[in-house]
Amino acid sequence: MLKIEGIKIATINSKIKYKNRDDLLLIYLPKGTIAAGVFTQSDIVGDCIITARQNLKKGLAQALIVNAGNANVFNGKLGQESVNNINFTASDLFNCPQEHIYSFSTGVIGEVLQDKLITDKLPQMVQNLEQNDISWQKAAQAILTTDLTDKKISKEFEISGEKIKINAIAKGSGMIAPNMATMLSYIFTNINIDQKVLQQIFSQINEVSFNSITVDSDSSTSDAAMIFSTKKAQNPEINDINDPNLNIFKKNLQEIMIYLAKEIVFDGEGAQKLIEINVKNAKSEESAKKIAFAVANSPLVKTAIAGEDPNWGRILMAIGKVAEKIDPNKISIKIGDNNIVTNGIKDDSYDENKTHNYLKNKEIYIEINLNIANFNRRVWSCDFTEEYIKINKDYRS
Amino acid sequence: MLKIEGIKIATINSKIKYKNRDDLLLIYLPKGTIAAGVFTQSDIVGDCIITARQNLKKGLAQALIVNAGNANVFNGKLGQESVNNINFTASDLFNCPQEHIYSFSTGVIGEVLQDKLITDKLPQMVQNLEQNDISWQKAAQAILTTDLTDKKISKEFEISGEKIKINAIAKGSGMIAPNMATMLSYIFTNINIDQKVLQQIFSQINEVSFNSITVDSDSSTSDAAMIFSTKKAQNPEINDINDPNLNIFKKNLQEIMIYLAKEIVFDGEGAQKLIEINVKNAKSEESAKKIAFAVANSPLVKTAIAGEDPNWGRILMAIGKVAEKIDPNKISIKIGDNNIVTNGIKDDSYDENKTHNYLKNKEIYIEINLNIANFNRRVWSCDFTEEYIKINKDYRS
Repeated sequence: MLKIEGIKIATINSKIKYKNRDDLLLIYLPKGTIAAGVFTQSDIVGDCIITARQNLKKGLAQALIVNAGNANVFNGKLGQESVNNINFTASDLFNCPQEHIYSFSTGVIGEVLQDKLITDKLPQMVQNLEQNDISWQKAAQAILTTDLTDKKISKEFEISGEKIKINAIAKGSGMIAPNMATMLSYIFTNINIDQKVLQQIFSQINEVSFNSITVDSDSSTSDAAMIFSTKKAQNPEINDINDPNLNIFKKNLQEIMIYLAKEIVFDGEGAQKLIEINVKNAKSEESAKKIAFAVANSPLVKTAIAGEDPNWGRILMAIGKVAEKIDPNKISIKIGDNNIVTNGIKDDSYDENKTHNYLKNKEIYIEINLNIANFNRRVWSCDFTEEYIKINKDYRS
Repeated sequence: MLKIEGIKIATINSKIKYKNRDDLLLIYLPKGTIAAGVFTQSDIVGDCIITARQNLKKGLAQALIVNAGNANVFNGKLGQESVNNINFTASDLFNCPQEHIYSFSTGVIGEVLQDKLITDKLPQMVQNLEQNDISWQKAAQAILTTDLTDKKISKEFEISGEKIKINAIAKGSGMIAPNMATMLSYIFTNINIDQKVLQQIFSQINEVSFNSITVDSDSSTSDAAMIFSTKKAQNPEINDINDPNLNIFKKNLQEIMIYLAKEIVFDGEGAQKLIEINVKNAKSEESAKKIAFAVANSPLVKTAIAGEDPNWGRILMAIGKVAEKIDPNKISIKIGDNNIVTNGIKDDSYDENKTHNYLKNKEIYIEINLNIANFNRRVWSCDFTEEYIKINKDYRS
């Protein structure tokens, strides 16, 4: 990971849930850091999300705190009290307004968060703040729950001769569905950019990355993706969405966010395969998205792919069930390079054995061409295995 | 099963898919038999569904033919040709208009149906037609695919001193979701009733029975539920939806259809538990239905119940994800008799161990009271086990 001037990191074991690993992350952000974010669209959200949304109205950040193991959701008044206690303690330590503190929680719902376990650790964490490769690694690990691997990525490029850096971390791995599911992602950069422009492009890119993935169709109460910029790079401040300097930043940020989105799916609970579903030529954006997610979320499609069975009838079933007024006689489907269905009927060249062999790959591509109009949507999913069931039967034990 | 005058049954092994069991059903219906039906709402439907919908405009029936193992869906022109060949052969054998023949297919999608295997068997089946307990039993078995048990039920009652009989058979068991999924159900009665009235009450009852179940959120291309009446009972013809004589028929028919709907879910692929979800006091019927099915279809809720884990946070997650503008502070949840959440917070009496013990039952009741307005919806689902994955990875092998 890159070194981004002014940022400092500490992790610790808080004993909230996990006994033998760091499960609490503190990231210090230098004065003047701006923040942008997108959050779960669930009706039932964690109090940390409510507070973060509120704080974003000012858009300044001094610290990020994340705990894993307890989501602090649905705890009545105690939930908001926990967030307040954590954010107040941090603002006191850093001598900043409480609205500059962003704290997040992920884990089990409906159990009261012992916030004292967090606030008691914060002074010690402030003493331990540093930034190096190991601290970024520890940051990526501290926010995990049932994830098998940590997820992190860096990119560096130039704007007006200035080095722009982006570091990003994320966690998955169940309850992943459109509108981000139980995922957290925190992205850090030094670009000199206006907060409103940053929020605008972050929301745009979120739609084609974190909002384009699903593991199990379940959405979380606690999803959050945020980007923080120290603004310490010396590029001329970008304060217009049409500034040509923005393009290279958008391109890199999009690559980072799609990379993390795919990593989250690949590490979906029990997943052995990453599935890319590309719906082409739908009647509208909304229609393309609905059909893509119907296929991406279909347990029968996902189990067929787990079994490496080219049971393409199930793809048709999933397309049909959303009742989006498609024309069955115009549909074409490809699995990898294999033409499966062409204009509404099994392709003459369809070779079951060849398609079965293709499905032995770790990354599967499914293209659905509706041939109605010209709206497209690409989403990612994973296969559905016995392991998913095992993990989720036993989650709390 | 009851004996309904005039109906005759034959089953046979057609060799379409299954080698060692009868997989083709013929039911002969006496002249004057009326038919009503409801079908899949998928955009991609089998040609047999298209034909049955068309035939229902006249509403008369002479024979029902069902094959298991091949759904005859998405076979281009060949699909409709197969249906025509089967229906023409049967109409020729029974010397009736082709529109009086209803044929249905269930099984794999996208493989051409070898209709000659069916039409060649029909003359022999006509020779074998009979009606007794064994033939009804064989009828219930011949239409199964991955079902573990056959599903059948009878009821007898009186209207105006006349004995009214109802016999019903059904099959599940994956791709079961609202709008009926891959389910077939055929119901036979002798009530003297107008076809339009029969259609109207059948559609009504369908909504609270077959349209209230889900196994895996996937919907089939081939769902069909039909009711046939020989009209041979001597009750005064019911030709008004408000005829008081209709009440006892509706009550019995609803009990039959809910019984079969629950049997289908209980026999869901890999299911070990039946889950009843009762959403109360929602803002609208549509909202109650959406929330009920969000919980019923949530893989995380279904795996928690498979694991007998009272992880009620997942129920909240599922309620929240449909974004139906509920008020989290008004929600109450019960699992069985256990108060879990009351007015938006964990109930003081909540006892995890007691709820865990309750979840060891085969039938699980979940009540979600939104306390907003007064619309209710009850749906049924099943738990989600490793066995579901195994069955669906291997379906075609």
